[in-house]
Amino acid sequence: MRILVVGASGTLGSAICRELGSRHEIVTAGRNSGDERVDVEDFASIRSLYQRVGTVDAVVSALGKVHFGSLSDMTPDLMAIGLRNKLMGQVNLVLAGVEHVADGGSFTLISGILAHDPIKLGTSASLVNGAIESFVEAASIELPRGIRINAVSPGVFVESMEGYGPFFRGHKPVPVADAALAFSKSVEGLRTGQIFTVF
Amino acid sequence: MRILVVGASGTLGSAICRELGSRHEIVTAGRNSGDERVDVEDFASIRSLYQRVGTVDAVVSALGKVHFGSLSDMTPDLMAIGLRNKLMGQVNLVLAGVEHVADGGSFTLISGILAHDPIKLGTSASLVNGAIESFVEAASIELPRGIRINAVSPGVFVESMEGYGPFFRGHKPVPVADAALAFSKSVEGLRTGQIFTVF
Repeated sequence: MRILVVGASGTLGSAICRELGSRHEIVTAGRNSGDERVDVEDFASIRSLYQRVGTVDAVVSALGKVHFGSLSDMTPDLMAIGLRNKLMGQVNLVLAGVEHVADGGSFTLISGILAHDPIKLGTSASLVNGAIESFVEAASIELPRGIRINAVSPGVFVESMEGYGPFFRGHKPVPVADAALAFSKSVEGLRTGQIFTVF
Repeated sequence: MRILVVGASGTLGSAICRELGSRHEIVTAGRNSGDERVDVEDFASIRSLYQRVGTVDAVVSALGKVHFGSLSDMTPDLMAIGLRNKLMGQVNLVLAGVEHVADGGSFTLISGILAHDPIKLGTSASLVNGAIESFVEAASIELPRGIRINAVSPGVFVESMEGYGPFFRGHKPVPVADAALAFSKSVEGLRTGQIFTVF
């Protein structure tokens, strides 16, 4: 398969490339690195990415920018960070990408455990993850030509505990390679409209 | 109790006012009608609403604008309609409202069945409803002074079938009075972080 991985340079994106790269042709994309550059907060930039990359069998997203902060300090502008990046960045990868995905191809987005197991300072992350999961379920019934869509919802990564550990006290961290396996299940399997939990 | 009902003139808002109005003082707010006018897409307008209304025991939202349309015709601008109105309109009612809600008071927001039972043309509605539900669960653990937050998730209303029936074939419509009862359960009960389904 030919697989476009957006957000490929991060902890998760790198693990996805390791998992899928041994069997498939990977095209990496990111804001500041990768085979192709893309600003996922700019719809024209996403369209341009697809024009340059051409047809792919799978689009995989490892985007993840949201603001962590207390509900009492949250503002519309701070909420908008996650809406623009992790939420609409991923939704727009789907809206702009459908015509560039081969018959029977797939989209795999990233949500996260906070959709249903919230933590302090995590209201924006929860909101965004819940939105992604319901969007995936809804989009799966409308996609044409057998194109599939799933989300992977991981817990906090072992590899990210240095930064995120204090926010996720009591959460059992998962190896990022396990999340990458779930992406493989989505891309190389046949299910659609699923939320593959890794926690 | 003193209860602020935003979106009070619609099918749902009117039913909520009927249910709660016999026992409580209701302050109605809407874009074009009600005791107070508010543009929920404008954070300054929401803040001004709370300044004028003063302290309340409960804030109830019956907002609902989202764009219905096929995934293939969906655009970032059409998605933004629901993000601005039903999603961030309600989130911002919470962000701006916390300091105006009495100790032990509550917020009750509206999501909907499409969060988990999607229909054709409903990707934006599903996304918004899923976001609201995860936000409610997350916000419930951070709200101060015993303030609670829940969402009511109704199916399509009997009273809305003339307009929405063709979109919801096979869905069992529910009386809007049943949804209003769920708002009463949230406002007059003690639970928090709940999604009260009415379908």
